[in-house]
Amino acid sequence: MATKAEDRHTQCPVARSQGVVGDRWTVVILRELFMGNHRFDEILAQTEATPQMLTTRLKRLESDGMIERRAYNTKPLRHDYVLTPKGQAFYPVILALRAWGETWCKTRGEAVAVRYTHRPCGKDPGLGTACKACGEVLRKADLEANLSPAYARERESKGSVARKRMKAAE
Amino acid sequence: MATKAEDRHTQCPVARSQGVVGDRWTVVILRELFMGNHRFDEILAQTEATPQMLTTRLKRLESDGMIERRAYNTKPLRHDYVLTPKGQAFYPVILALRAWGETWCKTRGEAVAVRYTHRPCGKDPGLGTACKACGEVLRKADLEANLSPAYARERESKGSVARKRMKAAE
Repeated sequence: MATKAEDRHTQCPVARSQGVVGDRWTVVILRELFMGNHRFDEILAQTEATPQMLTTRLKRLESDGMIERRAYNTKPLRHDYVLTPKGQAFYPVILALRAWGETWCKTRGEAVAVRYTHRPCGKDPGLGTACKACGEVLRKADLEANLSPAYARERESKGSVARKRMKAAE
Repeated sequence: MATKAEDRHTQCPVARSQGVVGDRWTVVILRELFMGNHRFDEILAQTEATPQMLTTRLKRLESDGMIERRAYNTKPLRHDYVLTPKGQAFYPVILALRAWGETWCKTRGEAVAVRYTHRPCGKDPGLGTACKACGEVLRKADLEANLSPAYARERESKGSVARKRMKAAE
C-alpha cells in the first residue's frame, strides 16, 4: 500500500488512483488481464499498443504492485503477467467504466460487447455493479462472459496477428 | 452518444471510455465538478493543473459532451462549467476509483478523505457502490460529504491560493 512521493501532496483517493491508472493504455492492459490474457504478445495484439509502450506500462504496473511476472516455461524461460490482489481489486472500476462506455460511448445499433451470465442466478446481470436480476454485488468469479459476434470477430482478428507474429519469432 | 473515428476500431466499452477519460487530469477535473466546484480558477487551484492543461481538458470535455459552459455573470461575461447527463453518469466510476484509491493507494494511518452520510438511512455507506448499512445503490444526490480534517485543510489551503489570484486579477 505504499504511495509515491508525488501522490502524498493530496489526500484525495481519486487523485491517488490516477497516479497508478491515469493512463488509457494502462487501463486497457488491465482489461486484458481481467479477460484472462496474460502473455506479452497477446496483450500487445489486443491492445494495439507498441512493444515499447506495453513494456513501459507493464514495468510500471509491476512496480506499483498491480501485477506480477510469473514463469510459465523454464526452457526457454518465459514469463507472463498476473494480477496481484491490488490489481484484482481494480475490477469494480473496470465494471463501472464498462457500464459508462456501453451507455455513453457507443452509437445506436452497436451491440453490448460482452454480456455476462451471473452464475449464482443464471441471469444477465445488466450493466450495474449489482446483478439486476438477483441484486447481489457482482464478483468477477461469478461472471461468465459471452462476447458479441462483432467483438468476438475483432478479438479473433487481433489474436491471429499475434499468433502469426509469435510463429515467425519461433 | 457520438463516438470518435479513432474509437470505432474497437467494440470494447472500456477502451472507448478511455478515449474520453483516459487521462489523469481529466478524471481529477471531473472529481472537482462532482464536488460542486465549477469555476476555472477554483478547479485550477484544487487540481494543481497549469492554466493551459486545464483549458485543453475543459475544451475536450466540452467537445466530448461531458460538460457545458454556463454564463453565471453577464457584466462582465463569466462562464463556469457544469456536468451534462453524460458527465453526471460518470459518477459510479468516481466512486469505484475512490474505493480502490482509499484501500490501495494510502499509507497506514491516513484517514479516509471524504466520509459520506447516506441521507435516506442516515448512516455511513462505506466505500462500495451500494450502502453498507441499508443496501441501496448510492446516488450522488443522497450523499452528504464530510471531509477529513487533513483533506479539509488541504482544500482550504489550495482554495486560498485561488482566491488571492482572483482578487489580484480583479
